[in-house]
Amino acid sequence: MKKIFFTPGPTQLYDFVPKYIEEGLSKYIFSISHRGKDFEEIFRNAVSSIRKLLNVPDNFHVFFLGSATEAMERIVENCAEKHSFHFVNGAFSERFFQTAAELKKEPEKIVAEVGKGFDFPNIRIPTNTELICLTQNETSTGVAVGLNEIYDIKRKNPDKLVAVDIVSSSPYVDIDYSLVDCAFFSVQKGFGMPAGLGVIIANEKCIEKSKKLMGKGCNIGSYHSFVSLLKYAEKNQTPETPNVMGIYLLGRVCDKLREIGIEKIREETEKKAEMIYDFFDNHPKYKPFVEDKSLRSKTVIAISVPNSGEIIKRLSEHGFIVGSGYREFREKQIRIANFPAHKIEDINGLLGTI
Amino acid sequence: MKKIFFTPGPTQLYDFVPKYIEEGLSKYIFSISHRGKDFEEIFRNAVSSIRKLLNVPDNFHVFFLGSATEAMERIVENCAEKHSFHFVNGAFSERFFQTAAELKKEPEKIVAEVGKGFDFPNIRIPTNTELICLTQNETSTGVAVGLNEIYDIKRKNPDKLVAVDIVSSSPYVDIDYSLVDCAFFSVQKGFGMPAGLGVIIANEKCIEKSKKLMGKGCNIGSYHSFVSLLKYAEKNQTPETPNVMGIYLLGRVCDKLREIGIEKIREETEKKAEMIYDFFDNHPKYKPFVEDKSLRSKTVIAISVPNSGEIIKRLSEHGFIVGSGYREFREKQIRIANFPAHKIEDINGLLGTI
Repeated sequence: MKKIFFTPGPTQLYDFVPKYIEEGLSKYIFSISHRGKDFEEIFRNAVSSIRKLLNVPDNFHVFFLGSATEAMERIVENCAEKHSFHFVNGAFSERFFQTAAELKKEPEKIVAEVGKGFDFPNIRIPTNTELICLTQNETSTGVAVGLNEIYDIKRKNPDKLVAVDIVSSSPYVDIDYSLVDCAFFSVQKGFGMPAGLGVIIANEKCIEKSKKLMGKGCNIGSYHSFVSLLKYAEKNQTPETPNVMGIYLLGRVCDKLREIGIEKIREETEKKAEMIYDFFDNHPKYKPFVEDKSLRSKTVIAISVPNSGEIIKRLSEHGFIVGSGYREFREKQIRIANFPAHKIEDINGLLGTI
Repeated sequence: MKKIFFTPGPTQLYDFVPKYIEEGLSKYIFSISHRGKDFEEIFRNAVSSIRKLLNVPDNFHVFFLGSATEAMERIVENCAEKHSFHFVNGAFSERFFQTAAELKKEPEKIVAEVGKGFDFPNIRIPTNTELICLTQNETSTGVAVGLNEIYDIKRKNPDKLVAVDIVSSSPYVDIDYSLVDCAFFSVQKGFGMPAGLGVIIANEKCIEKSKKLMGKGCNIGSYHSFVSLLKYAEKNQTPETPNVMGIYLLGRVCDKLREIGIEKIREETEKKAEMIYDFFDNHPKYKPFVEDKSLRSKTVIAISVPNSGEIIKRLSEHGFIVGSGYREFREKQIRIANFPAHKIEDINGLLGTI
């Protein structure tokens, strides 16, 4: 049976991804040396296409890692000697905070009620904070933080580094990189690819901090320190043998999304999100978990239901795969991903079946 | 033109790998949740098949990472509070040592002359050493360390952990896991797969050490600490969204290699190595770089040549891709990988063309 995955990641692959994998196989791309010119061209194209698609300025670098979880670790290691501050509104922002604690930093956090927003005007960020961490789109609950709130934090704290988790909102989310220092995502969500690649987009201030910490004798990690990543990125290489297929596919996918047009993709994502929220706002039994419309994620939509298992099973019998709620919400929610790879007719099919 | 890659990794994919990728695509394996039962079954099968193929005892755990370079970092983080000792005989063993230095340990090393062996009976390992690191097969020079020498080190140092890099010799190398504590490899070499996955095989003593360091408040890393990896492995999961394709393919490849028979694969590898070394021992201009036959790697064969660029170009015109020498040997050596995926007729074709 044909299946369509609306899971929040891994998720539906873009239609054209299998073809790109086959092309890569026929061109021997998964056999070439990661220290040779052919790989350097793949690296260069991927970075260049990401920059163009996401409008990343020249003073930012693009680094490839194993996962977004690794990105959290590397950002903490390289951007904070001791003091990170975390806006926690779900499991992934809590994971960011925990990562800092596990790395023996002294992180602090402000915690929002699940499914609710932060009281931004009244949050005091300690003056000794080096790194402020925000999860723009909480995959666990479907809450999104407004970009203006994030930019305001940077404006009020120009001396601190601001890192933004856009794991499940990129490439839909349109970040103004002049107002953040670092962002990161993985490819198995909005980019419709197989999992196994994380991407960090970090500016010169992050690199300077990393070098400063290195100079002070701090542990900034080894092969994936920002200093090491940059040294190799300048040669269009990675410190280790990377996920070459992932880097190749990401370049091809970004090329294709630019061809389609990022504005069109973003408009369609909003249109599909509206269709989904409208449907559930008017549903007798299933309701959007996030009540405040201004906080609702466009790409990961959590719906409160009486019994998720029954709905998930019924939908799967029609080939529609949706996610359960996260952890404590496993049985009380379903989560529907609305990524660029999901077509309007698929959404119609899903909602019609519900 | 059909190409055959004899590069030391990434290298020639196994014939059956493209078919496994297609099957994975048609079964939606790259879209499934990494927290669901289907993924757990893929994880369970991969670990079980690795155990059977490589004869890994029950008191060892199998962990999946992004690369073998990451494996070095995680082993140092989790198995040494301060004191690691490194047998350095090339660029990758030096990388292991450097990793420990970058992680602010106090590593020591003994360095062998390039292309030569260690004077094992006269090496004194400091008594405060916690972790002894050996590179069994140096991909950079084609020097192999004898297994008996490694086992002797463990016998003489039963209180210290012994970690062995088998990156470019597995699955050919037949490790007796009762005489080491930890081994690691990546999949883009002897397993004939696309790059992007590293594997650590570590025993309970490594886990105990990791827990002990955690208890003392040491930094053992975050999501990929041995404690975290084990917590998830016990559920047949990984801490992060992993390279699902890599784990799936590795399970399938190990199944297939077991079907072929590991003894047969090892015999064939030795036979092909003999063909290659015999050919160059009798060649008027090109000579094996490693003179001592007992130190010659069976899987990565370095050949001294007057001008590597000319030979590499000429061979590539016939579809045979070989590696250059590593770093300072770039122009003076070629490197020929002899992995299980390389067939006897391919070796004959290559040698005939040379």
